[in-house]
Amino acid sequence: MGYRYQQLESWLLQGIREHRWQAGERLPSIRELCRQKALSKATVMHALQRLEAMGVVEARPKSGYFVTSLPVPIKAPVVQARIAAPRPVTVSDLLQDIMRRSAAFDLLPMPQAGELPASLVTLNRSIGRALRRQKGNDYQYYDEPAGEPALREQIAQHALRRGWPVTPDQLCITSGCQHALFLALMACCERGDVVAVESPGFYGVLQLLEQLGLQGVEVPASCEQGMNMDALEDVLQRWPVRACIVSPAFSTPGGALMPEASRRRLLALASRHDLAVIEDDIYADTAFSDMPDPLKALDGEDRVILCSSFSKALSRDLRLGWIAGARWHARILHLKLVTQLASSRYLQQGVADYMADGSYATHLRRQRLQLRDQRDRLLRELNSWSVDLRVSRPEGGLAVWLELPEQVDTLSLYHHALEQGVVVTPGPLFSITGQYRNCLRMSFAHPWRSERLGALARLRALTGCGD
Amino acid sequence: MGYRYQQLESWLLQGIREHRWQAGERLPSIRELCRQKALSKATVMHALQRLEAMGVVEARPKSGYFVTSLPVPIKAPVVQARIAAPRPVTVSDLLQDIMRRSAAFDLLPMPQAGELPASLVTLNRSIGRALRRQKGNDYQYYDEPAGEPALREQIAQHALRRGWPVTPDQLCITSGCQHALFLALMACCERGDVVAVESPGFYGVLQLLEQLGLQGVEVPASCEQGMNMDALEDVLQRWPVRACIVSPAFSTPGGALMPEASRRRLLALASRHDLAVIEDDIYADTAFSDMPDPLKALDGEDRVILCSSFSKALSRDLRLGWIAGARWHARILHLKLVTQLASSRYLQQGVADYMADGSYATHLRRQRLQLRDQRDRLLRELNSWSVDLRVSRPEGGLAVWLELPEQVDTLSLYHHALEQGVVVTPGPLFSITGQYRNCLRMSFAHPWRSERLGALARLRALTGCGD
Repeated sequence: MGYRYQQLESWLLQGIREHRWQAGERLPSIRELCRQKALSKATVMHALQRLEAMGVVEARPKSGYFVTSLPVPIKAPVVQARIAAPRPVTVSDLLQDIMRRSAAFDLLPMPQAGELPASLVTLNRSIGRALRRQKGNDYQYYDEPAGEPALREQIAQHALRRGWPVTPDQLCITSGCQHALFLALMACCERGDVVAVESPGFYGVLQLLEQLGLQGVEVPASCEQGMNMDALEDVLQRWPVRACIVSPAFSTPGGALMPEASRRRLLALASRHDLAVIEDDIYADTAFSDMPDPLKALDGEDRVILCSSFSKALSRDLRLGWIAGARWHARILHLKLVTQLASSRYLQQGVADYMADGSYATHLRRQRLQLRDQRDRLLRELNSWSVDLRVSRPEGGLAVWLELPEQVDTLSLYHHALEQGVVVTPGPLFSITGQYRNCLRMSFAHPWRSERLGALARLRALTGCGD
Repeated sequence: MGYRYQQLESWLLQGIREHRWQAGERLPSIRELCRQKALSKATVMHALQRLEAMGVVEARPKSGYFVTSLPVPIKAPVVQARIAAPRPVTVSDLLQDIMRRSAAFDLLPMPQAGELPASLVTLNRSIGRALRRQKGNDYQYYDEPAGEPALREQIAQHALRRGWPVTPDQLCITSGCQHALFLALMACCERGDVVAVESPGFYGVLQLLEQLGLQGVEVPASCEQGMNMDALEDVLQRWPVRACIVSPAFSTPGGALMPEASRRRLLALASRHDLAVIEDDIYADTAFSDMPDPLKALDGEDRVILCSSFSKALSRDLRLGWIAGARWHARILHLKLVTQLASSRYLQQGVADYMADGSYATHLRRQRLQLRDQRDRLLRELNSWSVDLRVSRPEGGLAVWLELPEQVDTLSLYHHALEQGVVVTPGPLFSITGQYRNCLRMSFAHPWRSERLGALARLRALTGCGD
């Protein structure tokens, strides 16, 4: 951890974890910390603000910083990915099995009954209104390949709030983020090309590499900083990499928020090696505090393709995403036209209205608190698991990454858990080379109702992490 | 024209065209025709029933067959496609220009105001109801890769009525027919493979060949019988063809309904040469009289992949299609999952309800009459064009195929027409080898309101087909 504020942050976190300061207790004042650690006021404030953003401390006006009652992170996973030569990708059939259970993001295999959240009712009303506005022979026309201008306009305005000034004509609407990633890879790679991916990294990307006949090379990614730039540099020197796929905002499964220094270094490397950079931005809108800027905002060479969708932050059932194709934009438009012609206009108009009237922003504000609570509850539960467990502590996204004891095999755990009505996502799905056998991705996308807590307890017993 | 009923049919059509029998007049009786032409009663009745299905004659109980007042087909186009060796495909940028105008199926470049048809209002209500039924955390789940079971069930029931007993688990829901064709080609071909296509044939298929790096070989297709089986046999003997794409029901642009004999021969050839047959069935539900059976219904070897959607018969804006992948079904499911995860469940449920309560069947019955009227009106208008024009007379679909005089260049016509606010689809878009420069596809998908008749008149002047 290079920076001085990071050193202070770690020291304070460690102290809270070891109960040097209890929940509700005041931390040393800024002045004390400056003196004690020989740091500038700016550095100390930076570290404290980061702890505040994490929910570990809270600022009380004129009193200082106090330890909150939120759980303190247990040990973080130490990703020790091996770097292996690029290779064709083969994804386990297991993933299809999981997807068939529609359950990649829940411990339970089926949707649960209950009330639809208010912000989703509002969304559906917007879509319903757009449907009722159809007139004349609208239904006999295809949407233009780039998608409905009103929705692109709203997405551009949303991007601007994250420091990324994009115009609607630089965007293309897709059927979700997976579709955007597919278009991106089709546009900038040819069969046999080498693509660098995060390890552990999103299985959907690995599947795409497999289906498009691309070779993958894994670059280690930590749960704190994301893709390791030293490792990437090493990989780029050794093999002819055409594209690099990263998820700088709350990557799945690790949940890292890539620091700005890494981002700048990534773009410098991309420039030197003439890479296409594909940014999977799908989790950005789930940020628990401020929404991070996209990597794309730093892209001075028009070589970052940003892919995103509403699936994680709003609804999986919309099937609406977008892509900013940079220098490949025209080719991506063409590929979208050829592979599926168009998207639904009424649907795009409904979502555009939902964004325009502020409902999406309201939804995100509400959801942010809820997601943070759900993460905290999960961390608290996992805290009580009695073994040498390592768990990530993401500041956004929908899941944590668990490192279980060496001897646990999560692939066989998958089958045993399924027999007991619990769905888990085993670690090896996040690797081309079968790494992470003792790891799991575990979702906190859903409220911890009793059925889910029950599933968690059964899982604890199955992993041998019981008392 | 080999069969005796076809010879009789041609003779009668010729007589009506030459006013041997006027509109409203009675044709010779069945008994007279049997005697005069030395044919069996069954043969004569078959010919008369075909003329009735075309709308050229009508049966009056106990009185015989009478000539209707509908227009008699003007000369049919004589497709004289050249067969050239397989080649990589390059599609004109013009097509993207047309698609950007959202106008491949209208003479006018923009949707028109007015009331939405009643059956579309009903459809939208069904979708709206499905939206309002969302509950609990439905929105956090992806649809299963094959698509919503209720919709697959309805599509299977609909298929059964056309003589094709398919089960829901043999179907996969897609984002429209173009998406289905894409999945089909991805599943059964590899880069560099040769694919046989109809000529003239659907430009969307040609674009797919281009983007997937496949080679195309054109097989002549007539406006009456579709793909020429002698030519296909010839092609198969000369080149290693992997797949053949046909549209047996009202192919675009020719509009042919492939006769059963051709269908059986196609399947025998496919068996002998181990072809994948991709059936584009998208126009079947627009049939003006009985809905034709799909080619797939005759498929005894599980080698016909049927692709279709609701875009032509119901709404372009639904973006819902389906594919029956035959022996490639599992691979197609996987490809769908990888390239776009899932489809919208509420939307599929809404459409399933619309089909289940009979609204879709009602819609098709109404639309059938309207489409036939619109085709007739177009043929009547074209009848008055004073030159040597050849026009197809399809019994389904949304467009006719026009052969203009040799000297007309429809590619330059496209630009001139656009300046006058008219969009046409030039013939060369329907060929890999730039054939059909003097041809056009012309749509009758829309009512002939005054603006469209005006556009038609401007087009007539531009083609030099004025008086």
